[in-house]
Amino acid sequence: MLDLPKFKAAAVQASPVFLDVDATVDKAISIIAEAAGNGASLIAFPEVFVAGYPYWNWIMTPVQGSKWYEKLYVNSITVPGPETDKICQAAKEHDCHVVIGVNERGQSFGELYNTNLIIDNKGMLVGKHRKLVPTWAEKLTWTGGDGSSLKVYNTEIGPIGTLACGENTNTLARFTLLTQGELIHIANYISLPVAPPDYDMAEAIKIRAAAHSFEGKLFTIVSCSTITKEIIDIMKEDVPNAEELLTRKNSAFSGVIGPNGAVIGEPLIDEEGIVYADIDLSKCIQPKQMHDILGHYNRFDIFDLRVNTAPRKNITFTDGDESGQK
Amino acid sequence: MLDLPKFKAAAVQASPVFLDVDATVDKAISIIAEAAGNGASLIAFPEVFVAGYPYWNWIMTPVQGSKWYEKLYVNSITVPGPETDKICQAAKEHDCHVVIGVNERGQSFGELYNTNLIIDNKGMLVGKHRKLVPTWAEKLTWTGGDGSSLKVYNTEIGPIGTLACGENTNTLARFTLLTQGELIHIANYISLPVAPPDYDMAEAIKIRAAAHSFEGKLFTIVSCSTITKEIIDIMKEDVPNAEELLTRKNSAFSGVIGPNGAVIGEPLIDEEGIVYADIDLSKCIQPKQMHDILGHYNRFDIFDLRVNTAPRKNITFTDGDESGQK
Amino acid sequence: MLDLPKFKAAAVQASPVFLDVDATVDKAISIIAEAAGNGASLIAFPEVFVAGYPYWNWIMTPVQGSKWYEKLYVNSITVPGPETDKICQAAKEHDCHVVIGVNERGQSFGELYNTNLIIDNKGMLVGKHRKLVPTWAEKLTWTGGDGSSLKVYNTEIGPIGTLACGENTNTLARFTLLTQGELIHIANYISLPVAPPDYDMAEAIKIRAAAHSFEGKLFTIVSCSTITKEIIDIMKEDVPNAEELLTRKNSAFSGVIGPNGAVIGEPLIDEEGIVYADIDLSKCIQPKQMHDILGHYNRFDIFDLRVNTAPRKNITFTDGDESGQK
Amino acid sequence: MLDLPKFKAAAVQASPVFLDVDATVDKAISIIAEAAGNGASLIAFPEVFVAGYPYWNWIMTPVQGSKWYEKLYVNSITVPGPETDKICQAAKEHDCHVVIGVNERGQSFGELYNTNLIIDNKGMLVGKHRKLVPTWAEKLTWTGGDGSSLKVYNTEIGPIGTLACGENTNTLARFTLLTQGELIHIANYISLPVAPPDYDMAEAIKIRAAAHSFEGKLFTIVSCSTITKEIIDIMKEDVPNAEELLTRKNSAFSGVIGPNGAVIGEPLIDEEGIVYADIDLSKCIQPKQMHDILGHYNRFDIFDLRVNTAPRKNITFTDGDESGQK
Amino acid sequence: MLDLPKFKAAAVQASPVFLDVDATVDKAISIIAEAAGNGASLIAFPEVFVAGYPYWNWIMTPVQGSKWYEKLYVNSITVPGPETDKICQAAKEHDCHVVIGVNERGQSFGELYNTNLIIDNKGMLVGKHRKLVPTWAEKLTWTGGDGSSLKVYNTEIGPIGTLACGENTNTLARFTLLTQGELIHIANYISLPVAPPDYDMAEAIKIRAAAHSFEGKLFTIVSCSTITKEIIDIMKEDVPNAEELLTRKNSAFSGVIGPNGAVIGEPLIDEEGIVYADIDLSKCIQPKQMHDILGHYNRFDIFDLRVNTAPRKNITFTDGDESGQK
Amino acid sequence: MLDLPKFKAAAVQASPVFLDVDATVDKAISIIAEAAGNGASLIAFPEVFVAGYPYWNWIMTPVQGSKWYEKLYVNSITVPGPETDKICQAAKEHDCHVVIGVNERGQSFGELYNTNLIIDNKGMLVGKHRKLVPTWAEKLTWTGGDGSSLKVYNTEIGPIGTLACGENTNTLARFTLLTQGELIHIANYISLPVAPPDYDMAEAIKIRAAAHSFEGKLFTIVSCSTITKEIIDIMKEDVPNAEELLTRKNSAFSGVIGPNGAVIGEPLIDEEGIVYADIDLSKCIQPKQMHDILGHYNRFDIFDLRVNTAPRKNITFTDGDESGQK
Repeated sequence: MLDLPKFKAAAVQASPVFLDVDATVDKAISIIAEAAGNGASLIAFPEVFVAGYPYWNWIMTPVQGSKWYEKLYVNSITVPGPETDKICQAAKEHDCHVVIGVNERGQSFGELYNTNLIIDNKGMLVGKHRKLVPTWAEKLTWTGGDGSSLKVYNTEIGPIGTLACGENTNTLARFTLLTQGELIHIANYISLPVAPPDYDMAEAIKIRAAAHSFEGKLFTIVSCSTITKEIIDIMKEDVPNAEELLTRKNSAFSGVIGPNGAVIGEPLIDEEGIVYADIDLSKCIQPKQMHDILGHYNRFDIFDLRVNTAPRKNITFTDGDESGQK
Repeated sequence: MLDLPKFKAAAVQASPVFLDVDATVDKAISIIAEAAGNGASLIAFPEVFVAGYPYWNWIMTPVQGSKWYEKLYVNSITVPGPETDKICQAAKEHDCHVVIGVNERGQSFGELYNTNLIIDNKGMLVGKHRKLVPTWAEKLTWTGGDGSSLKVYNTEIGPIGTLACGENTNTLARFTLLTQGELIHIANYISLPVAPPDYDMAEAIKIRAAAHSFEGKLFTIVSCSTITKEIIDIMKEDVPNAEELLTRKNSAFSGVIGPNGAVIGEPLIDEEGIVYADIDLSKCIQPKQMHDILGHYNRFDIFDLRVNTAPRKNITFTDGDESGQK
Repeated sequence: MLDLPKFKAAAVQASPVFLDVDATVDKAISIIAEAAGNGASLIAFPEVFVAGYPYWNWIMTPVQGSKWYEKLYVNSITVPGPETDKICQAAKEHDCHVVIGVNERGQSFGELYNTNLIIDNKGMLVGKHRKLVPTWAEKLTWTGGDGSSLKVYNTEIGPIGTLACGENTNTLARFTLLTQGELIHIANYISLPVAPPDYDMAEAIKIRAAAHSFEGKLFTIVSCSTITKEIIDIMKEDVPNAEELLTRKNSAFSGVIGPNGAVIGEPLIDEEGIVYADIDLSKCIQPKQMHDILGHYNRFDIFDLRVNTAPRKNITFTDGDESGQK
Repeated sequence: MLDLPKFKAAAVQASPVFLDVDATVDKAISIIAEAAGNGASLIAFPEVFVAGYPYWNWIMTPVQGSKWYEKLYVNSITVPGPETDKICQAAKEHDCHVVIGVNERGQSFGELYNTNLIIDNKGMLVGKHRKLVPTWAEKLTWTGGDGSSLKVYNTEIGPIGTLACGENTNTLARFTLLTQGELIHIANYISLPVAPPDYDMAEAIKIRAAAHSFEGKLFTIVSCSTITKEIIDIMKEDVPNAEELLTRKNSAFSGVIGPNGAVIGEPLIDEEGIVYADIDLSKCIQPKQMHDILGHYNRFDIFDLRVNTAPRKNITFTDGDESGQK
Repeated sequence: MLDLPKFKAAAVQASPVFLDVDATVDKAISIIAEAAGNGASLIAFPEVFVAGYPYWNWIMTPVQGSKWYEKLYVNSITVPGPETDKICQAAKEHDCHVVIGVNERGQSFGELYNTNLIIDNKGMLVGKHRKLVPTWAEKLTWTGGDGSSLKVYNTEIGPIGTLACGENTNTLARFTLLTQGELIHIANYISLPVAPPDYDMAEAIKIRAAAHSFEGKLFTIVSCSTITKEIIDIMKEDVPNAEELLTRKNSAFSGVIGPNGAVIGEPLIDEEGIVYADIDLSKCIQPKQMHDILGHYNRFDIFDLRVNTAPRKNITFTDGDESGQK
Repeated sequence: MLDLPKFKAAAVQASPVFLDVDATVDKAISIIAEAAGNGASLIAFPEVFVAGYPYWNWIMTPVQGSKWYEKLYVNSITVPGPETDKICQAAKEHDCHVVIGVNERGQSFGELYNTNLIIDNKGMLVGKHRKLVPTWAEKLTWTGGDGSSLKVYNTEIGPIGTLACGENTNTLARFTLLTQGELIHIANYISLPVAPPDYDMAEAIKIRAAAHSFEGKLFTIVSCSTITKEIIDIMKEDVPNAEELLTRKNSAFSGVIGPNGAVIGEPLIDEEGIVYADIDLSKCIQPKQMHDILGHYNRFDIFDLRVNTAPRKNITFTDGDESGQK
């Protein structure tokens, strides 16, 4: 008889130690200890938690922001690397799964990725996902990832997938995860007080999480960062009214959404903290009777989605024989 | 200079004259007159408004429901036909666009479709969409449509698309409309007091409308039916506790959702009535800067969706010449 | 509201005036008068009623049968022709539909077809069907028809299709009729006392009629010929033990089968007579909920049947311009 | 000189241990031992014998049935898996072929298939067939299979094909098996006391088996389940009058039909038991002279059936090179 | 009841009045009178009876033959014209059908055709056939006809077709006549003592007539010319050893062949005279049971013969609009 | 310089060991040894030599003949298979080409073909031809082949084609071989004492061979079977007067016909034996000057014959991708 996992999930709403990679890793490890201590088997961290979000893109001109790019670059990490080793070690020690956002360096100095890491409770870095398209002002900092990282990972607690921030708007990216049997979706974000005035960030996060949970009949864990006084102070160096710009309400939302699209328990709005929720994957069965867009409620005789999972290649070296490319 | 349409939309929340095709068409025409009188240029009617939803599938056994199927069948319509002619005439007379759900007969007696008609303000039946997959108990009544009706129609007031009820859960169907430039989406539903207890129909409608509007940066008009005492009385013939089963609260939602996913004005919950909203399509421009999943915010080097729009053929008669099939 | 036809059908079980085309046409007309007088709106006659079945193929050697072929040939008819004119006139006078089997001459003297005529109540010869493949010994007499005659004809009393004898075994021929909306199927046969001993003709007729009715949820009218003493006496000329060979029991079955595959009323076995049955096409609706192999119960994404309806051409005369062949 | 197999077949009429997958597998193994002990080389089990049929769909509302769906889901199996291993082992030990119906889990929680397994006497799971379209109320539980499983398997005892229940109504599915040289057809069913009153299940089973055997000139083995007091008691939890609803006579039929469409020996109606029959495949030769719809009695110049055997794909992951899709 | 014609046919073996058109027409008329007087309803004359065969092509060099071409040209006729009027008149007076070969002038002086005329018993010139390809040395004189004259003509005595001499070797030309229902084939020839030594002209005529009759199950009337002393004397003008060259035995054959390929009665070899035979078209029926290459014994799903019947056009005047050629 | 083959051909007139496939193959091999020993490079065997002709179709009723069909079926062969391997081996050992008729089994039990095998002197089975249409009574036994086997095979001794029995009547089938450059035509037959009285089998064979040789200017090798006392005795089991029916004179003809249509040497009539003839293909050149119906003596601007060589398909399995059907 089939027996599906039950576990406690933790959605972390917190800020990194801004642009300080080592301190931020330490902070992450300490949050892991806390949440695991409270029984969490899955701990979701915000987008680019290590080591901060390039707010300058939204409140400075590109040229002003240029030196900040360098600061971010040198505080970014390689994957794997010493920083990921530490986090993996913590996951193993505390027997919990961790999904966490990082700034990942590529090969070229202009190649910085907004990456989510998926780490299992054995401390194994089982996968990573590079955000496909940075959102609006983020294009000034990050390079888009490729289709090779649109994966769902089977773990002891169930199949886990993740998308960063605006990607949760992308119908096709979401469907690509759903179709791999995703039951636990981590959508992580950053607090975005700088969005246009009629853009209610907390609401926009909720709409997308509810939609993904409802369409896929699964659990979505939303983890969002916060903005600390420290961040504002740092930005003030170049933007005198940074405080005004970075303190809008309803800019962050963390919480857990169930298979019917409803929030489980209380979400956190703007405040730092950890939201816990009990997840029972067997709750994903009954709603599938209504709509199973991966099964009886879709029409794969009509819809044929093809996803190119080839890693990006900058160049291909061949021996001149087309049929035998390497 | 591009000048995008502005107009008033009406979302009708009403019940048909149950299983009486002629009386229901008359009622539809009278609602058209009223809404157009109030300035509406687009009037959205509920799913299968003509002439009713097969509630028996949810509250009777299939065998009990069998005779009701026949009643529905003989009160279904062909498209086009005398009933659609009447509705088209009303649209023309009142110079308004109408989207309305009907029970459409196919060629075989088991072939009944849940169809939405799109009629323009010249009284032209510009298109129809047959629901792709009936939802759960509805499978006992309807046959699924094919990909040929997943179309967006250009009209004087803008490009209109429509999906019926549960189809709004289907990521790929929604994307297929978005990609054709849809700016006005009609999502129509039926009041569903018979869903499972943890399924809040009004909320489930709203989640999907918000998601579609937010992902596509467009306007969604939601029209949902209501359940009258008459319907309950008719069902009581076979189901003594029909009243108890068919009167749950929060079972119907009609209203208009804007490009940011937020409800415009006040929606109607459960009550019969008409929701009006002013639509200004130029509001769809600015949000596209953030996420345009049909443009800069998607990755068509990764995602390749192919949609089979071939009409379903039960058989193909040929003249024996492969190259010249008919 | 859809209103489907109700009418009385007559299944004729009778023998022709053997190899006498004029006398047989007279007999057919007199049966039409009788059945129409009893209220029948549809009268089904046996296979090749005009003017007899080539029993010699089963009880003589081919060479012995050769002279009988010539007798049959000169007693065959062209379609249309004076004989069909007479039958059409009778159908018109008695306001009834007639399906009747004839031996039809083609252009070449070796081209004799086993043809069913479909005549409406206005006396119009609306169609004909030439048996596709003659059964076993019949191959000595008849040429197979082509796909152009696999048609269902819409009439006042509903859509009518017909197959002759063994064709009712052909899954694909049957489906080709079903898919055109057939609701009234005429399966006509000849009494076949000469089949192999373990072949129970009456039962074999019933199996096929039940299958077609059940699969298509329609009415099948079975009309079968009988063998008279006259036929036996004529065959005795060349086959002394003709009586013994041609009098096996259970060799003929006529009757009406309903949409559930069950015989309506009492069928006729072996005896000459007319079986009447009241047909109500609305009975074809409810069973379609269970299995509608033309609609929700088939998979046209899997099955793609193509039927070549081109008339057989021995030669094509062209004007030398490929694009405008005649 | 060609020498065709002769063997004994067993058609099992029995009920599973309702919704208890392990106990049902044990029961299946014990029946295999018994039937093989009586000389059977082929043992046919009912549709979804492992571990029961969703009767709730016929006697409860969909919402009431929802929790039963979950019970069925967790008592369904993967193929292959530990349960199929056990059955294969039994087939090998007893040197017999087994065809048995199971509830098979797909990847998504809404994806449950009505699957028939074909196991040979070496204990090899040679194939499986997923029912293409669930029948009426069954649509509430099962997803339809694809064309990849419409196969006939060559075994020591001859070529075996199978269709589940209502599929035997599908002309085109049947023909697809016939055309692969099927000589032994297993049609399995469930006892269906809940069909509409004018639907005589035992008769409806017989009509279809007779038609398939007659059209294909082959042997059909029909195996049907029974309804035990245990099942009724379980259903009584939610449906007080379950006993009345589930005890109609003539709801189950098991037996063997020969190439002429006649039942061989005595079939079992409603009662639990095993029907044995001696099968001699050389009996399939002589009747082919009369009608061979795969050979001389068909017209493949007219009929061109194309069957899509591609497995259903929810999505296709490519390496970006169209010519080398994976 | 079908009643097929019976009649007497006459195959004329005679020589023209060499290169004297008027005298030859008179001779033809006198033969018509004689044969009709003996009861013939169909009288077949040799190839180019009017007014002689260009033997010079076989026994002179082309340049020597040149003046003879001119003699032939001026003794050729137009069709219709005064000469054909006379022959038609004779056919009418004697109530008989006539097929006769003539040298027909075309529009250009180099355009001379080897033409057979078909005249009915009302004196109507119902058709003509121009030899498609002249044989070997004949190419020095005649132009080939086009496909417009490959016709079979229905007459009171049955459907008549004709081919001249070597055309009876052309499988496709023969088949083109057969397929139009030809039952009476006129194959006319000229006495050919000048063929290569191992070419037995009488035998070669018989082989082809037997083949056409056997394949088509029809009657072939062979009419062949003779060589008179007059012809030899005329040729001697330029070819001293003309007598030696033009008197080989077995160079002419006239007679009638029946549907089984056998000669009816006695043919004429070399000698001038008339062969009479009684034709009963009903004899064409029974042999069709064996092989009917226009019906059951052919495979028009395999063979598709297209025949261009467009009259030869030397030039086409257009208005420059391709789609509207005249 | 072109050097055309010269060789000795052997036309075998013999009977099989009736309905005993193994003994007949042995007899064939022994005849190969004998003929090759006498210098033959090409040995032609009768139609369906392996293992006999279904005479019962001509002298019994179809039902009486039914059991004999089964005997023939089990004594038929697959191609290739162990029996063809043996014959190929003999051809290789004796360095000669063999054309031999066999009863070939298809996939369905009603699918028996009248097949000629073409084997070269390396023991390679280079091709087979399935008779397109069985003749008259033969339709009770054989299924017609398709156009894929209308081929001429280039061999060391020249281009070889073959047609079985009545096919040599088919103008279009013959032309299809001619047009591929056929120079050596094998026409094989069975002794047919059972034809209608006015059908002289030996003469009918000769007419067709002469016609084909004359039209195509090629060599025809005719091989015909004989009827032994053994065959008569076996048929006597069911037909007391079998001896009378099966002993008519002039029922078999074997021999060789040259390019002018004349028999070379002495043919064999009725008696068992081998006819030898010296073939010199250069004899096919000169007669082409007179009539070359594949070249200057035809009019391909008028005649356009299209031959469908597609193998017959009962069904087509596709992967759903029209462009890549299998």
